[in-house]
Amino acid sequence: MNRDLIKKRVKAIRRKLSEKKIDCLIVTKPANVTYTTAFSGDDSWAVITTRAVYLLTDSRYTEQAQAECIGCGIIRRKDSLVEAAAKLLKKLKSVRTVAVEKSTSVAAFEALKKYVKLRLKTAANIVESIRINKDSSEIAAIRAAAGIAAQALKHTLRYIKPGVSESELAGRLDFQIRKLGATNSFETIVAFGPNASRPHHQPGKRKLRRRDTVLIDFGARHKGYCSDITRSFAVGKPTPLFERAYDAVQQAQTTAIKMIKAGAKIQQVDAAARDVIGSSGLPVYGHGTGHGFGLEIHEMPFLKADGKGRLKAGEVITIEPGVYIPGKLGVRIEDDILVTDSGHKILTHICPHSPQLSK
Amino acid sequence: MNRDLIKKRVKAIRRKLSEKKIDCLIVTKPANVTYTTAFSGDDSWAVITTRAVYLLTDSRYTEQAQAECIGCGIIRRKDSLVEAAAKLLKKLKSVRTVAVEKSTSVAAFEALKKYVKLRLKTAANIVESIRINKDSSEIAAIRAAAGIAAQALKHTLRYIKPGVSESELAGRLDFQIRKLGATNSFETIVAFGPNASRPHHQPGKRKLRRRDTVLIDFGARHKGYCSDITRSFAVGKPTPLFERAYDAVQQAQTTAIKMIKAGAKIQQVDAAARDVIGSSGLPVYGHGTGHGFGLEIHEMPFLKADGKGRLKAGEVITIEPGVYIPGKLGVRIEDDILVTDSGHKILTHICPHSPQLSK
Repeated sequence: MNRDLIKKRVKAIRRKLSEKKIDCLIVTKPANVTYTTAFSGDDSWAVITTRAVYLLTDSRYTEQAQAECIGCGIIRRKDSLVEAAAKLLKKLKSVRTVAVEKSTSVAAFEALKKYVKLRLKTAANIVESIRINKDSSEIAAIRAAAGIAAQALKHTLRYIKPGVSESELAGRLDFQIRKLGATNSFETIVAFGPNASRPHHQPGKRKLRRRDTVLIDFGARHKGYCSDITRSFAVGKPTPLFERAYDAVQQAQTTAIKMIKAGAKIQQVDAAARDVIGSSGLPVYGHGTGHGFGLEIHEMPFLKADGKGRLKAGEVITIEPGVYIPGKLGVRIEDDILVTDSGHKILTHICPHSPQLSK
Repeated sequence: MNRDLIKKRVKAIRRKLSEKKIDCLIVTKPANVTYTTAFSGDDSWAVITTRAVYLLTDSRYTEQAQAECIGCGIIRRKDSLVEAAAKLLKKLKSVRTVAVEKSTSVAAFEALKKYVKLRLKTAANIVESIRINKDSSEIAAIRAAAGIAAQALKHTLRYIKPGVSESELAGRLDFQIRKLGATNSFETIVAFGPNASRPHHQPGKRKLRRRDTVLIDFGARHKGYCSDITRSFAVGKPTPLFERAYDAVQQAQTTAIKMIKAGAKIQQVDAAARDVIGSSGLPVYGHGTGHGFGLEIHEMPFLKADGKGRLKAGEVITIEPGVYIPGKLGVRIEDDILVTDSGHKILTHICPHSPQLSK
């Protein structure tokens, strides 16, 4: 990890803290800890003051932290994170007002209030509001993650044959991702036939039939960064209903993607996709049209019916409309898109919408 | 899921709530939602009153919830979980004092305080204190999960050959787990040689050598329940240091396991394992000696140096001492153990400590 990038991030965070008259931020959300320290492990907090960045971790991770977190004060804790944070704050004489991330649990916040004798408040989305704008190294990592995902799916196509189970196919895909040196962004969804009407179906024993449909929602995580792709397709001749649903979803997605550029209203992008499905006479999906992602699989901005604000250059989002008819089918198409000043770039172009299955 | 079991659990929770003079508990932790409703999806809360159990979920999960959560009032929310909970509470006339789980984020708790006009407090470990005692169906699920993990490792042994990378081996193992219809309890750790000195190493490109060591820490999740196993072994002739470390860890584990029975002091079990390593002259591990698990991979009780209380019958825990020498090696052996009145049962006996590698 480039040390200058971390410095730039911390500087942007300090600017936010200073606006809010906060001397010190306790960062508890794992993705925010990674973003501000380059630490890729778990169970650790970061403490950001006007002068330094500290990582509070334990013996399982000290070796890793020393290698990853150049420029951080690494504190090897023996007691709880709360106690370690309190001890550190006691030593930092210049700190007066401390904020804890609002995503922290009530339990940890109450314990901090007990141990820390300074003014303690909560702050929402300080790091997230910086993270929403991806820098070039982050975009490169997401692009690489999307490339790995596309490659993994390509290598998995030969296993999409009558008789394979959802669970086995998910396993084949995950193995290809691992083989390419990445991990999963989230638990792979493979749904055959009517199972796809549940947007978050868990792959099971259901076996692929000679004439069937497949929905795969998956992603590879590379250098900590996610990709998120959904493909839906028929095996054998598709039914007229599937074709109709597929065409509507495809058109909804194209319509929404075309609108993406810096300044576009989030609500309008969301509505555009829904309107296409609605006018086709098919049921309109209940989930959002898309979401930001990066170190986490779901990040700001959230593209939903009551979404606020406008897209900004440097945001990376999914566009993923769907059609779900319980007992019959589910179709969703999801791509990853970078918002630019002049429009957008589709980062998942390398992953064809209609994969070529072997005969 | 057996409806009577859920009823029994909810009854036990209501008893706790009544002791604390709470009319209604908002359950936000995913594993606690699953435990009290049988729902296996995400992004959903449960609300438990003296009369009913409600599941607040969204369109992605309603079909699944209807199939899984027999006896629950299923509320399909369109707005946030907080708003959905507030709306529900408004309708429940008999509810006066509401508690939210302490693991809830400060952000959600503050939003609830804004929307809910009742007396709102927090409560720690209400559901967890019931979950710590596993019922027979849970023990059966954990035993099955351990069986799948053992089977998956057995099928993976033939890939443990010079030239295989950590990442590929992890992928092979995960695929076997999927093929057996299960998922991972957590992200599989495969560490070769000195990489194993980092207890939470992330599998990478490092390839297995002709004379090398392997540490695999993994688990299968079956019907929501985890297993958690670590095996360490040499490929080719082990070094004297590896043999010495292995023997110490093996002896530490045996010593701690022998002490396990209802009534055993947690601190004493932890200390027994550490003492064996300490007297061998090798460095004593910094992590806990073990932890409970079930729906989550880390649950109460936690067996650590400052652990309090005693083991109880029906608890399922790991025992996993280790030796870590940065730059040289890491050895850990972890098994899953059921605490009984008369002693204990090792649930991972089916997974040999020294796997037979193919020549």
